[in-house]
Amino acid sequence: MFITLEGPEGSGKTTAVEAAVKALQDKGYQIVRTREPGGTPISEEIRNVILDKKNTAMDPRTEALLYAASRRQHLVEKVWPALKEGKIVICDRYLDSSLAYQGGARGLGVDNVLNINLFATENTWPDLTLLFDIKPEEGLKRIASNSSREVNRLDLEKIEFHNKVRETFLMLAKRYPDRFVIIDASKSREEVAKATLDAILNRLCK
Amino acid sequence: MFITLEGPEGSGKTTAVEAAVKALQDKGYQIVRTREPGGTPISEEIRNVILDKKNTAMDPRTEALLYAASRRQHLVEKVWPALKEGKIVICDRYLDSSLAYQGGARGLGVDNVLNINLFATENTWPDLTLLFDIKPEEGLKRIASNSSREVNRLDLEKIEFHNKVRETFLMLAKRYPDRFVIIDASKSREEVAKATLDAILNRLCK
Repeated sequence: MFITLEGPEGSGKTTAVEAAVKALQDKGYQIVRTREPGGTPISEEIRNVILDKKNTAMDPRTEALLYAASRRQHLVEKVWPALKEGKIVICDRYLDSSLAYQGGARGLGVDNVLNINLFATENTWPDLTLLFDIKPEEGLKRIASNSSREVNRLDLEKIEFHNKVRETFLMLAKRYPDRFVIIDASKSREEVAKATLDAILNRLCK
Repeated sequence: MFITLEGPEGSGKTTAVEAAVKALQDKGYQIVRTREPGGTPISEEIRNVILDKKNTAMDPRTEALLYAASRRQHLVEKVWPALKEGKIVICDRYLDSSLAYQGGARGLGVDNVLNINLFATENTWPDLTLLFDIKPEEGLKRIASNSSREVNRLDLEKIEFHNKVRETFLMLAKRYPDRFVIIDASKSREEVAKATLDAILNRLCK
């Protein structure tokens, strides 16, 4: 089973999933936790090109193609082999992140970005996508309180961008209701962890 | 005007075009000669990932996405600005090479590879594509005679691959008759150079 985690930084998805993974392992499930580029050398090299601070001239479509290339290689080398061995693969961010950030918020168009990702993934959709949904302002406050710094002007300017990301994620959840489960990430850590484990168990028992 | 050169190594396209460029410059045309990655740092970095000999695990779809990413950046940084200034851009290999090598010969499918390249290029098609057509055996003989080495078993095994490349190029020339001109590259150097210049002048006078 292929599970993906989506939602902004500060939504608490990492913490929630760690608790769920522990509970699942206790039940005997074999879990592979990963995130792109996932330690595959080619994907790492591609990611280095994307993140290279010198590359300020990078066009958004170049970036989208590079993310798709990195995703492809991570699938081939890591996700597919683990799925073949019957393991549960839990991947932090996957194609919905490209759709929300580059397709929605950067304005490339969700279906344009989907198109190149269908080429990259050969229609490998997650069985379950957990969307950790939280208002950008709240997520931001959490990050700020964790890093004990004040929310600044730049953070606030970014809110419009993150609002577009959120809208696109919620649109995707409506478009793909069979695989999406929305987790209300504004709730307490315990409630979010419980909702996460429940969603995964529900899908496993289907 | 955007002109692309296609055809295998050993087809003499570089020599033929050099002569044509000189003649065009003498007539006062401003020419930009380029080839991907064309000295644009991001495209160069992407190309380094593709050509890195360590990366033997690279999946063909990853490779196709990386070529498309490199192409995009080369367009944005080099081809579009030159076209905007009214220059004639002559580019050694472009999307038809991806269609022929990766779509046709590597078996990814011409339309699949076209799809990601339409995203990359935003439908930037060449105004003129010169296809330097030659039988793989003949091109091979030329390379061998230039490098004064014998044709070996590996070269011959490659012929089937290059036959598929050639078939795909010829299919593309039929599919896009308005922009393709086929140059018979088996003829003498002088004849090929003349046909090249004629094809470009014809298109310029249209």
